Amino acid sequence: MRPVYFLSDFGLEDPYATIVQAVLEARAPGLRVVHLAHGLPPGDLRRAAYALFQAIPYLPEGAVLLAVVDPGAGTARRAIAAWGRRLYVGPDNGLFTLAWLLDPPERAFLLENPAPPKPQGVKPLPGWRPGAHTFHGRDLFAPAAAHLALGLPPEALGPEVPGETLNRLPLVLSPGPLGEVLTFDRFGNAVTTLLAAPLGGWVEVAGRRLRVLRTFGEAQEGEALAYLGSAGLLEIAINRGSAREALGLREGMPVRLL
Amino acid sequence: MRPVYFLSDFGLEDPYATIVQAVLEARAPGLRVVHLAHGLPPGDLRRAAYALFQAIPYLPEGAVLLAVVDPGAGTARRAIAAWGRRLYVGPDNGLFTLAWLLDPPERAFLLENPAPPKPQGVKPLPGWRPGAHTFHGRDLFAPAAAHLALGLPPEALGPEVPGETLNRLPLVLSPGPLGEVLTFDRFGNAVTTLLAAPLGGWVEVAGRRLRVLRTFGEAQEGEALAYLGSAGLLEIAINRGSAREALGLREGMPVRLL
Amino acid sequence: MRPVYFLSDFGLEDPYATIVQAVLEARAPGLRVVHLAHGLPPGDLRRAAYALFQAIPYLPEGAVLLAVVDPGAGTARRAIAAWGRRLYVGPDNGLFTLAWLLDPPERAFLLENPAPPKPQGVKPLPGWRPGAHTFHGRDLFAPAAAHLALGLPPEALGPEVPGETLNRLPLVLSPGPLGEVLTFDRFGNAVTTLLAAPLGGWVEVAGRRLRVLRTFGEAQEGEALAYLGSAGLLEIAINRGSAREALGLREGMPVRLL
Repeated sequence: MRPVYFLSDFGLEDPYATIVQAVLEARAPGLRVVHLAHGLPPGDLRRAAYALFQAIPYLPEGAVLLAVVDPGAGTARRAIAAWGRRLYVGPDNGLFTLAWLLDPPERAFLLENPAPPKPQGVKPLPGWRPGAHTFHGRDLFAPAAAHLALGLPPEALGPEVPGETLNRLPLVLSPGPLGEVLTFDRFGNAVTTLLAAPLGGWVEVAGRRLRVLRTFGEAQEGEALAYLGSAGLLEIAINRGSAREALGLREGMPVRLL
Repeated sequence: MRPVYFLSDFGLEDPYATIVQAVLEARAPGLRVVHLAHGLPPGDLRRAAYALFQAIPYLPEGAVLLAVVDPGAGTARRAIAAWGRRLYVGPDNGLFTLAWLLDPPERAFLLENPAPPKPQGVKPLPGWRPGAHTFHGRDLFAPAAAHLALGLPPEALGPEVPGETLNRLPLVLSPGPLGEVLTFDRFGNAVTTLLAAPLGGWVEVAGRRLRVLRTFGEAQEGEALAYLGSAGLLEIAINRGSAREALGLREGMPVRLL
Repeated sequence: MRPVYFLSDFGLEDPYATIVQAVLEARAPGLRVVHLAHGLPPGDLRRAAYALFQAIPYLPEGAVLLAVVDPGAGTARRAIAAWGRRLYVGPDNGLFTLAWLLDPPERAFLLENPAPPKPQGVKPLPGWRPGAHTFHGRDLFAPAAAHLALGLPPEALGPEVPGETLNRLPLVLSPGPLGEVLTFDRFGNAVTTLLAAPLGGWVEVAGRRLRVLRTFGEAQEGEALAYLGSAGLLEIAINRGSAREALGLREGMPVRLL
């Protein structure tokens, strides 16, 4: 059976992520569910896209990537499953944009025939109708991911669609010289869309010029710098501080290699 | 062996939850521990009760539910194990109130004969006395949950007590028209005690009238609405915002179906 | 195969911790990875040292402890593996100071021959060079931990060094009368370096005298007190409040048994 790697913005304050895990396991007994990250900022598609980009090269081929960051849940946005060297299940909202640069989808299916789980082993409450239109992770995406993890045919989930029709975020990774702030990590480091970081060179962002060093340990405490991050993208950081706050960085700000 | 689903307010900043897991596994080698949620707001019994209510219908029958949200740890409050279609282990402080509406306990036992784990494989420090009176998750509840997961007799844990003597929170789920704000989720949505949400109808809360829609995606961005949530309770939300903050909602506030 | 218990400050907002897990599992198929805690305050070595101290007595002998809280990543600080009754892998920055009081290392090796994982199953992007100098958890520590979990010889990782050369934080645990505030937990309780808490006695901290009680449940709501905590260290708390905030406590503040 394929393992399922599960990413969401469900947080750890509520049992949403484990309810999804329980639905997966009930559908596919013995299935291995690995939690990839659930503390993503709510609805932050750029952060989610970057998280998947970071992780994909280290996750096994054949795995199912279940990703639920879905600010449009309950609207007309489509739900999809896509095939590259791994399988992708989630909303068609651009979440997989960067992962698909590394592992382009060859086929894609809409999820139109959900088989939502039913409450079990409980006493019915008068008037109680659990399951509504808002928890697609539990009612739509988990059943689809379990179906695929079991090796069942994707055609059963819904019609096939051309890969080009899948939504992408307007993000371009490039070797430079022009890029933008893609997103941030928990330490307040800014990740950019630039694939290069020439050692000893300079970067301009938010009206500042920063030196490209090998690592933040080479900067003074409190000094801003740029370096090639662990995902292969240029990052901007402050040694033992938050570049996001100290430099007033925001998503989409231009970044230029000088 | 029964799996153990473990809920607490221990957070992820400290290793408390994994220490409990390690004690469970040492007592019952091969035991499966599933973390249900540990980021609950400290001491928040309503939130914990709702988390269990949400999760129960999707967790396997026969599972052990270990729940430790225990603002009265170290006081005279009782510790209990209760039997429904699942087994419940935790403080007798009302934590299971809503779960027991779905899965009423048939028998209950006090936990009076703890068998706390001893430090092992470590050098004694002079004067060191680990294990005190404050970490009941590790020293009382985990040993009891492991005991039950192994299928050992509950009578060994302490005396049986009538189910009616177990503590409940003063919460009533009802089809309306009157209910209250039960708790909140991470997105700032308010969950209420109302089991119905008549489409197209109106709800009054905090001096406002809100429309009952099918899902938050049907509201404008920033618009407040009510809808039937994924646990079968009426919820109040703001599309892409926090209803809790924007509407000034608090626990216990009356909510009325108009 | 040895299980790996993994502690870090990587948080749950990003997939860093699961990427490390995936690297461990790819190197050592079937390896058991247990997440000990990843929400530690970034770079907080005292908190990390205390977390390991708390957990060690309940973790199995023979386990690998992988700990990555590493404010000096990318600088000249050494990377190490050390042997007690458990195996310790991480930066040589004092992280294990308190754990080693309970489980002193008998041998130690530098990690100088990393074998970083390579991106796999992905399409190369023009100019893309993933893997840089900043994610030692993935590129250095995880491969070393997997190597040791597999039972392979430590000599292959780098040269042996005397245990006395390993770095320690300047922390002394003592029965009193003088100690200091070691760190804090999520509830705002202060943990001290004192190994004793004489019932009915008094403690002085931050210009206040506090009574030593058996547990916080014995104090009034909002009352400050001292008690023997679950790790065997004297703690300072406020019943249902944050002692850190209410008493203005800071790390390193002197604490005295009267």
